[in-house]
Amino acid sequence: MAASELTIGFDADDTLWHNETIFERVHARYRTLLAHYHDAATVDRMLFATEMRNLELYGYGVKGFTLSAIETAIALTAGKISASEIQQLIALGQEMLAHPVDVLPGIPEILADLAPAYRLLVITKGDLRDQERKLARSGLATHFRHVEILSEKDVSSYAALFRRHAIAPARFLMVGNSLKSDILPVLALGGAGAHVPYPITWAAERVEAAPEASGRFFTLKSALELPGVIQTWAAP
Amino acid sequence: MAASELTIGFDADDTLWHNETIFERVHARYRTLLAHYHDAATVDRMLFATEMRNLELYGYGVKGFTLSAIETAIALTAGKISASEIQQLIALGQEMLAHPVDVLPGIPEILADLAPAYRLLVITKGDLRDQERKLARSGLATHFRHVEILSEKDVSSYAALFRRHAIAPARFLMVGNSLKSDILPVLALGGAGAHVPYPITWAAERVEAAPEASGRFFTLKSALELPGVIQTWAAP
Repeated sequence: MAASELTIGFDADDTLWHNETIFERVHARYRTLLAHYHDAATVDRMLFATEMRNLELYGYGVKGFTLSAIETAIALTAGKISASEIQQLIALGQEMLAHPVDVLPGIPEILADLAPAYRLLVITKGDLRDQERKLARSGLATHFRHVEILSEKDVSSYAALFRRHAIAPARFLMVGNSLKSDILPVLALGGAGAHVPYPITWAAERVEAAPEASGRFFTLKSALELPGVIQTWAAP
Repeated sequence: MAASELTIGFDADDTLWHNETIFERVHARYRTLLAHYHDAATVDRMLFATEMRNLELYGYGVKGFTLSAIETAIALTAGKISASEIQQLIALGQEMLAHPVDVLPGIPEILADLAPAYRLLVITKGDLRDQERKLARSGLATHFRHVEILSEKDVSSYAALFRRHAIAPARFLMVGNSLKSDILPVLALGGAGAHVPYPITWAAERVEAAPEASGRFFTLKSALELPGVIQTWAAP
């Protein structure tokens, strides 16, 4: 197969740029705000439960996270939290949205090398405007032929994306930090996956079992190994 | 030109289904909640100012509206609003997201008639998951070849969409209730626009001047006039 026909999809948060580290810092401030009422483990557990309950309504992203954080804080304090503390949560959410984009090491050079030879896509989920803003700020946008911001990354959404872009799964490799959202659905459809773990994984993205797909699944220590892996995949 | 090559874009909120009426009911409940503190006009003015200030960060949609409503309520009550009243605002937002989809009269029949002869697209803005859910619930999804949920509807986003779908502007007609978002940018690019006003227009979508574009701009009293207008446009 001609190299020009191969498509490589990139997840965005925690694959192209840091994201979970920002959420972690916000979680720490959230625990501090509620430390008078509950221990950190309870705060974390209740916030996560609220996020999962609201996921169907809110989808992914900072705005839904902020609303769930406010809802959880009201419940955990039995309504004793003050309006000014809630305003602090709103400001935290706005800080996250306005946060500078911190691109991961090696990514600009790797994308610049790959872009002439492959069709590169961004395939991410989250708030539409937030993801567009981060891509614009990252300085990486010119390397990508298309940007797909999905409300969910599962087998049916990848299948629809393959139809939309006339992608043959056997000629598609997905690069990402989440086995659940980036790798498993693509392997299930017959594509390939390069898993680049990020130091922190959001609880909702954790899976137990490592995939088995000989010659189609690669685990990398960092994105710096990507050029070698893509060479192996592209010319088997 | 062959009819099969013609593309018709449809806005969603207040074009395919009721939306602003739901926001209006929520505004009424919001004014009631804050009636102890300020008159209705002040509440409306301050909420709108917060929404506009946050638009760049939040984008369009219910989640950003809810966050702006909370922020405004805290500011307007100088922090005296209670946590349980803020919880009511969160619940209001969730009600809006879970609201049944009320399709406008004639739309299902009109789309069913047009779908075999034209390439129909949905072109809307707002929260990704919310718009996908509304389209799924509307029962109208099967009539559309593609669904485009944009973070903004302006000249550059329509131009990018035309490139993405290889649409010649002269063969494109946009149907929508907002002159600002549905009609003016499309006319500027050389396309056609069918304006179907909705009884209420959100302040951010209001424009002063009616467009002038002979043979490419149509004002309709209701969507029921659409088949006639499309016939005029398609076979000039």
